[in-house]
Amino acid sequence: MDLYEAISRRRDTRHFLSDAVPSEILDRALSAAIAAPSVGLSQPWRFIDISSWNRQLLFDNFAHMRQEAEVGIAVPEQKQLYQSLKLEALKEAPILLACFCAYPSEDEFTLGIIGQRRSLEWSCACAIQNLWLSLTAEGYGAGWVTILDLPKLKAQLECPLSWEPLGVLCIGKPATDYGQKPMLEQLQWRSPERKIEEFYQKREPRELS
Amino acid sequence: MDLYEAISRRRDTRHFLSDAVPSEILDRALSAAIAAPSVGLSQPWRFIDISSWNRQLLFDNFAHMRQEAEVGIAVPEQKQLYQSLKLEALKEAPILLACFCAYPSEDEFTLGIIGQRRSLEWSCACAIQNLWLSLTAEGYGAGWVTILDLPKLKAQLECPLSWEPLGVLCIGKPATDYGQKPMLEQLQWRSPERKIEEFYQKREPRELS
Repeated sequence: MDLYEAISRRRDTRHFLSDAVPSEILDRALSAAIAAPSVGLSQPWRFIDISSWNRQLLFDNFAHMRQEAEVGIAVPEQKQLYQSLKLEALKEAPILLACFCAYPSEDEFTLGIIGQRRSLEWSCACAIQNLWLSLTAEGYGAGWVTILDLPKLKAQLECPLSWEPLGVLCIGKPATDYGQKPMLEQLQWRSPERKIEEFYQKREPRELS
Repeated sequence: MDLYEAISRRRDTRHFLSDAVPSEILDRALSAAIAAPSVGLSQPWRFIDISSWNRQLLFDNFAHMRQEAEVGIAVPEQKQLYQSLKLEALKEAPILLACFCAYPSEDEFTLGIIGQRRSLEWSCACAIQNLWLSLTAEGYGAGWVTILDLPKLKAQLECPLSWEPLGVLCIGKPATDYGQKPMLEQLQWRSPERKIEEFYQKREPRELS
């Protein structure tokens, strides 16, 4: 699929068909992921397939955090809309992929992270975006769930202490494309800005003391 | 260009030709960027074009941090190789784009960030990856520079306090494709792992107390 078509078709999907995801599709997506840029060629991305894991436990983790978040919503109509949104597919998505950033130890030299160690997580996000675009190009989709008690998830999965969780990807064949727009736009949670000028500005030269 | 071709051709480029980047190329890349997924449709990405800004100041910022980082390299041969690497194109790349994440205020509700506020930065990284793939598809390239005193850069650019800098993208027409591999691989800084199994594991079901 053409790059731009993949970029525009990619949706944050929370509604899936029950079709299985062939292993070659997941392999292709993971190959795309690990071809992402990484700071100092560190390749800090780690993926744990938890499709066969305790899904109820994962869902309970989500449900608890989802409710916790509600406290932050002041407007009643907004709270009502929030409660009606489907924000995950943890019980039914054919594949669940927990994503992590493997931080190097403090005394290990990694090129490029002196400015910000979190640049390692940015590399992982680039990998996830590649994976997502690959799934889209193959007719599949993903939804990135971050409404989770991530330290708890990490402990439950008994990951190395140096791994930082980035959430869980729900993967499968989309049941809808949400009218070719983000689900949160379709359901009028928020209207995305599409003018470049809102995000881009040009800084003119100036003297600096 | 086909998605997979863009993914495999994308390089972290530090060597550019002097060819100007047409504004429609940058526009296309920015359009790809803002089509990225963002947590809660927050669209937190911000880009400041600093191509006309004080480049010497920026380079000095880099040079200082580059030297700071050297302290962390214990092996003399590694230090020597590090010193020989070209890790930016801040003086000569036709376009320099400073990238930021605009954090919402603590009392503003953003869907999805309760698990990790840094998910906003992950969204920005997804946008940068889209931008990078678009440039690649158009025959251009980018290099992501994070060896910078980022708080200092932010202060110098007089950005809002709520913006978190993610570094500077150097953009232009690549002078080389580094033998179709990452520059750091070509120069034997590090050999990237290309086996999926190194990054992926399947967790079997287990009872949890």
